[in-house]
Amino acid sequence: MLQYNLEQRKGSSLYGELVRLMRADIASGKISADEHLPSKRDFARSLGVSVITVEHAYQQLIAEGYVRAVERKGYFANDIGSFVPSQIYSRQSGQGIAGASAPVGSDVATSSIPGLASSAWFPSGLRCSSGRESTEGPACESYRYDLTGGVAPGSFPRRAWARLLRDVVEDASDEVLLKAAPATGVRELKEEIARHVARFRGMEVHPSQVVVGAGSQVFYALLSQLLGPLGSFAVEDPGYSTLAQAYRAQGLEVQLIPIDGGGIDVASLRASGASIAHVMPSHHFPTGVVMPISRRYELLGWASESPDRYIIEDDYDCEFRHQGHPIPALQGIDAGERVIYLNTFARSLAPSLRLGYMVLPPHLMRRFERVLGFYSSSVSTVEQLVLARFMSQGHFDTHVNRMRRRYREVRDAALSVVDEAGLVVSGKDAGLHFVLDCGTRLDEARLVARLSEQGVKVRTMGEYRHGATRASDNTQLVVCYSGLDAVDSSAAMRLVCGEIAAVRA
Amino acid sequence: MLQYNLEQRKGSSLYGELVRLMRADIASGKISADEHLPSKRDFARSLGVSVITVEHAYQQLIAEGYVRAVERKGYFANDIGSFVPSQIYSRQSGQGIAGASAPVGSDVATSSIPGLASSAWFPSGLRCSSGRESTEGPACESYRYDLTGGVAPGSFPRRAWARLLRDVVEDASDEVLLKAAPATGVRELKEEIARHVARFRGMEVHPSQVVVGAGSQVFYALLSQLLGPLGSFAVEDPGYSTLAQAYRAQGLEVQLIPIDGGGIDVASLRASGASIAHVMPSHHFPTGVVMPISRRYELLGWASESPDRYIIEDDYDCEFRHQGHPIPALQGIDAGERVIYLNTFARSLAPSLRLGYMVLPPHLMRRFERVLGFYSSSVSTVEQLVLARFMSQGHFDTHVNRMRRRYREVRDAALSVVDEAGLVVSGKDAGLHFVLDCGTRLDEARLVARLSEQGVKVRTMGEYRHGATRASDNTQLVVCYSGLDAVDSSAAMRLVCGEIAAVRA
Repeated sequence: MLQYNLEQRKGSSLYGELVRLMRADIASGKISADEHLPSKRDFARSLGVSVITVEHAYQQLIAEGYVRAVERKGYFANDIGSFVPSQIYSRQSGQGIAGASAPVGSDVATSSIPGLASSAWFPSGLRCSSGRESTEGPACESYRYDLTGGVAPGSFPRRAWARLLRDVVEDASDEVLLKAAPATGVRELKEEIARHVARFRGMEVHPSQVVVGAGSQVFYALLSQLLGPLGSFAVEDPGYSTLAQAYRAQGLEVQLIPIDGGGIDVASLRASGASIAHVMPSHHFPTGVVMPISRRYELLGWASESPDRYIIEDDYDCEFRHQGHPIPALQGIDAGERVIYLNTFARSLAPSLRLGYMVLPPHLMRRFERVLGFYSSSVSTVEQLVLARFMSQGHFDTHVNRMRRRYREVRDAALSVVDEAGLVVSGKDAGLHFVLDCGTRLDEARLVARLSEQGVKVRTMGEYRHGATRASDNTQLVVCYSGLDAVDSSAAMRLVCGEIAAVRA
Repeated sequence: MLQYNLEQRKGSSLYGELVRLMRADIASGKISADEHLPSKRDFARSLGVSVITVEHAYQQLIAEGYVRAVERKGYFANDIGSFVPSQIYSRQSGQGIAGASAPVGSDVATSSIPGLASSAWFPSGLRCSSGRESTEGPACESYRYDLTGGVAPGSFPRRAWARLLRDVVEDASDEVLLKAAPATGVRELKEEIARHVARFRGMEVHPSQVVVGAGSQVFYALLSQLLGPLGSFAVEDPGYSTLAQAYRAQGLEVQLIPIDGGGIDVASLRASGASIAHVMPSHHFPTGVVMPISRRYELLGWASESPDRYIIEDDYDCEFRHQGHPIPALQGIDAGERVIYLNTFARSLAPSLRLGYMVLPPHLMRRFERVLGFYSSSVSTVEQLVLARFMSQGHFDTHVNRMRRRYREVRDAALSVVDEAGLVVSGKDAGLHFVLDCGTRLDEARLVARLSEQGVKVRTMGEYRHGATRASDNTQLVVCYSGLDAVDSSAAMRLVCGEIAAVRA
């Protein structure tokens, strides 16, 4: 029986410590690939902890791809070793990957793990698009229930924000108010962001690696300029369509790479000849796939094959994980300086703020300063300082926690209606939407039109597909519940389930 | 003797009306090229107005290139007709260009107008770069007197801005606060901007032609994406170096075009094969040249030769003209939809706000919506609404007027020191800096180093030259006085004049 000493943990929960230790042992091979893990009950007894603690730890390890659950057989360690680049070992003690290598050459593609894509043990998150696709304009205002996104009404922390705005405009020195901030942003905010990603995403980042900008689109433009000369860009399909559009608008060649149950298909990526891969490993939009640790290392391996290759980790909505800990960022296990981390405050605060950040590896930051350092920041200094104070005074954590609870409530209201209707969803454990499987292939145009007549705006999975990935057999709806409250969310889902039944009939 | 009825003017000043009517007659040929105009005294008597009114009108017409002053001979109409494209006549009644064409083929290049470039009658404006070049960072903070730009300390309207920020955050609907603004910006602000450019720049613009963005660099990126496929970009030399850098960072080919006393050399522009010309006709940075009306029509003529050609009119700092009316925008006489107008609030409010706008011709706006409409705005909705209220409540006009008076005071303090030292300046009547001629060629590195030791940061004209234009014989300093108050400005200029004398000796 596996044995761990959970008493020496420093500040983390019992469950968190168990996850950390098991991650390390699976990555190092100390727990071998396919090893049968103890049952929850036995393990709990032997560790002297509750069954719930072990269950939570197993769930988290499954979500991250270290462990799989096999029905009626129990838990097994996955084989993640063949893609763990050797240089990573030296740096990974913090995340527990500290030992020797695991067996090489076995079949580790996540899609081969039985039941992974559909298992309830695989909490795949989906991200809503509305914050970024609001340019569609007034059309959506005529819908009673907009299931394509948005931020919960009443959720913006007006009072704290207004007070900080006033404070900053009154306090800030002339030097600060009357000069455009440097290209990378205001120091105070970069420091807060570095602290935040350290705590919540397991990233060791120096504030000087942070670039603040007016939303993700500014970063697409900056990255196009910084990395465009290296070669073509790869994006996931299905995927967020603005992404390919933005890169193409920059004059770049864009490759569509299919995803499977483990995320981007690395073989297809390699075959595409692309140099830069823009991926959403924490929870892919719109499928909700969480990239397991084996695929993460496989992807890092791909990037390490050439100095021209980089991974853009789009961590949009990572704040909203409804079960267990957040999945650690890919950036946190990148020892080769291949990962550019991207996130915004669009969903965690408000898309209207136009606030985001990226984290560059040190050598790319030097290049950024040399090639693009002549730019001024794209974000108002006042708003940067307000956000810095909002974070340093603890408002941001409070706000995100409050929003997470609220979104869970809205989600639960929607899910209970779906359950009653006997329909199946996936990707409900993270992000701000889930995928609703209609159980069969329907006339999608008719379904969407009928829902539209009922005042419900919703998109099908097909709308995010660009051809690289084969469509699923069943009609799937991408349900973004973040713009509704709990009452509207169940009302909307009753209409959706009703129309699905009507169109099926 | 010319005769005008100045009584039917609607709301404009006597002087403004006279300018408007004479512009129309010179453009239409009713006043022929090279016609000797009445003396100020005779004209004033015949019009029943004061000599000052006529003098101001003549100064304005000279500044705009319609009239020239010849020493001991008086005032003459310029020949502007040969470049006035025929399609312009139909639209120009508002600005008075309503009649038939003027003689064609005569030598009208502005540089051929005697004494134009150096005459005191030719108030050429210079723009300071600091707001846009502040990324240089902490180095400049160690200078006592920074003559490379900045905004006057204490000038930001903190109280009004803070109050409006609070109001907007408290009043704005959830719909507004929780959605990213569309790519072109918030409606309220676009309406205010359209009103503003109508009043102050003579531009008839529908709010739907306005795009709000986070500073000029955002527009360079958007325009690169919108127009880049049409061909290479031309910029002025000497010029603002970040411009060429930004376009090159976007992967565009950039041509450097020499300027003469009338602005960009159109023959060189044509020979360069460039499709897009980025110019600063109101007052060029850093030489301060104001493009006269003849050159404006020549440039519009160049643009009209091919549907792929466009002019980007960079109207940076147009708010600060210290004598007469503002020079009307090139956009206002563009009937062929060839001009894209660009301006920011960096100098009129604060560079830290990252607020600017561009005005697209209607057909380009449709293209923008089609090609780039998927973007979200790069500016926070709150800040857009605050600026809209700041403008609609009259604060912006008040602020700009206050700043104009203040900058004039700072400039005058500097100029009186320069006068005492017997040195000559040019470009003092507009913008926020002037060019100081050292009277001879000096060891520039030595001069700059000595000034630096004295705590004075200043740039030479040579630093803005990229090779397309021949350097002047004398050493010239680009003196940006906007970051200082009147006391510091004379103190700084005493050091500058002292060191010039020392290096000359």
